Amino acid sequence: MKRPHNGSEGVQRFRILESSARLFAHQGFEATSLNEIAEEVSLSKATIYHYFASKEEIYSEIILDTLERLLSFVKESIDRNDTASRRLVAAMEAHGQFFEDNFWAFTAMLIGFGGIRELNRRARAVALRDSYEELLRDVVKAGIESGEFRKADPVITARAILSMLNWMARWYKPGGPKRAREFAQEYASLIMQGLCV
Amino acid sequence: MKRPHNGSEGVQRFRILESSARLFAHQGFEATSLNEIAEEVSLSKATIYHYFASKEEIYSEIILDTLERLLSFVKESIDRNDTASRRLVAAMEAHGQFFEDNFWAFTAMLIGFGGIRELNRRARAVALRDSYEELLRDVVKAGIESGEFRKADPVITARAILSMLNWMARWYKPGGPKRAREFAQEYASLIMQGLCV
Repeated sequence: MKRPHNGSEGVQRFRILESSARLFAHQGFEATSLNEIAEEVSLSKATIYHYFASKEEIYSEIILDTLERLLSFVKESIDRNDTASRRLVAAMEAHGQFFEDNFWAFTAMLIGFGGIRELNRRARAVALRDSYEELLRDVVKAGIESGEFRKADPVITARAILSMLNWMARWYKPGGPKRAREFAQEYASLIMQGLCV
Repeated sequence: MKRPHNGSEGVQRFRILESSARLFAHQGFEATSLNEIAEEVSLSKATIYHYFASKEEIYSEIILDTLERLLSFVKESIDRNDTASRRLVAAMEAHGQFFEDNFWAFTAMLIGFGGIRELNRRARAVALRDSYEELLRDVVKAGIESGEFRKADPVITARAILSMLNWMARWYKPGGPKRAREFAQEYASLIMQGLCV
């Protein structure tokens, strides 16, 4: 969640989303009750219902907000670079950075993606995820067309890259000696150069 | 689970594990009750307790059994090959194959790994996972030493490979036009050759 500047309503809403993300990431959506969320943010359930209609709405909001911001953050870093190699490396670094800066929301998003039941929100989440995968595929395609990259399959390549980055949510612990962005850089250099001499 | 040949006790135990794996993979450990498992295999709860002390024991058994068999299956395929490149490709293909052949147990294992609470079983699961990662790291190290591979970081490389393979549990649907083994092959060729010309 982006920290708001617009007075106490925005701040309260932000706190609810952030604490919920941490609870969802830790224990899953099903195991987290609205009571726990209320306790965590020291607000009454009535106050929470002032901002969100249900626990599911909080969950969907975290997922959609995270995906939207990931997409624009990575897109900006691609647009700031010129060659396909630089663009792909920058995209992977930006993803690592965003993952660490939004650790709980990102983890909750990856765990909970399939859990959105309301059809409109679910469709929006799927569209955002597809756009993100397409963004990476397009960088790979452009690199093949320009002759920078060999003729790899852009679908497989984008998926391999996303797999490496997304799986970090399973083992990466924030606060360790190495930043998520650095791991992403090392993955990028592996994908760029390959193993064989 | 390996299909047993040893009479009806073994078959019953196997059916309990297999049906539980499917339920756990679909809806998670918490959301699955022993009643549901009993219903799914058309056995009484008493019969299930004859084989397993608790739902958690079923869960741990699925995870440990899957990890043990994955480790030996992939190790065998490594041992059948000679060069580091062939070994790494064979390991990745074998992992893809094993994943598809043991789809529900594998998915339940990946979802539920952190959920084993009993300390001895948890330690065994962690040791198996570490041995598996080490197996892949050793192939990478040998390839660097022999000069087949460039000086990549074996830890990062093994983790990148496992991430690509494990993330398949999130998107791969069995019964589609392409086998998991084939996706693993394409990932292997990407990792071997890299993107840049």
